[in-house]
Amino acid sequence: MKLIIRNANNQDMAQILDLIKELAVFEKEPDAVVVTVEDLQNEGFGKNPLFTCFVAELNKEIVGMALCYFRFSTWKGRTVHLEDLIVKEALRGKGIGEKLYAEVLKFAYKNKVKRVEWAVLNWNTPAIKFYERTGATVLKDWYIAQMDEQALKKYVKNNESI
Amino acid sequence: MKLIIRNANNQDMAQILDLIKELAVFEKEPDAVVVTVEDLQNEGFGKNPLFTCFVAELNKEIVGMALCYFRFSTWKGRTVHLEDLIVKEALRGKGIGEKLYAEVLKFAYKNKVKRVEWAVLNWNTPAIKFYERTGATVLKDWYIAQMDEQALKKYVKNNESI
Repeated sequence: MKLIIRNANNQDMAQILDLIKELAVFEKEPDAVVVTVEDLQNEGFGKNPLFTCFVAELNKEIVGMALCYFRFSTWKGRTVHLEDLIVKEALRGKGIGEKLYAEVLKFAYKNKVKRVEWAVLNWNTPAIKFYERTGATVLKDWYIAQMDEQALKKYVKNNESI
Repeated sequence: MKLIIRNANNQDMAQILDLIKELAVFEKEPDAVVVTVEDLQNEGFGKNPLFTCFVAELNKEIVGMALCYFRFSTWKGRTVHLEDLIVKEALRGKGIGEKLYAEVLKFAYKNKVKRVEWAVLNWNTPAIKFYERTGATVLKDWYIAQMDEQALKKYVKNNESI
């Protein structure tokens, strides 16, 4: 078994989308994924890429991925946000996830950012304990607010005069 | 009283940093702000800007700002994140904050993103009610995990072999 962690390329995005969809099905939200292979390719590998993606490759098959990007904190400056880390269900518990996690942290360290940040479901105790063990702090006093496309359109149309 | 909402420029960043620091003092965390005027200028106005900033200008003085940037959701694609929205304390309650909020949402709409996202302190009920009234959804099942510079260095040094 030969596991390689490497930067993703354009041609990996179909397999990356399969991983994203597999996880969404597992989380019972298959229809929530509207992103396409073209979106992933255009946004990740254009002139001004929106994200950096690492893959775990086992015998030439992509079995895991971590996707991250830079953000900007008005207190700290440039930070890295870990958006998603997925390992194929059949291959979990073998340390592949931590290898991807370490790769993102190394990337952040090399880029001299002041902080790495991500979100975790509040009932996911094993993940929270893992993150804390690695030196992360889990903040419990924030909520995440989201406005979706429909609400955004409605707000903008109703508030053109503001 | 002539209020203008406009895109920030390089020369505004000293006043923007004053706003950021004023708020940090108010939140009793003055030392948490390590960002400099140069950071704001380099990261916001270089060849590949990390953020977009809007300012509220009243009689030529900057009295408020909103700072946002693009993120990438593996489910939705490109999104906008509203990182910070500040109005000078003496001028709150006059609708300046909502004008900046609307400006960010218009920016997001023009850029055809699938979602706008931000964080809100869970005890800030007036803010939460305001966001919900404008069509946002407040998610209560996520925590934010952060690894700071020191913990990042420690993790990377201890896990070079992973």
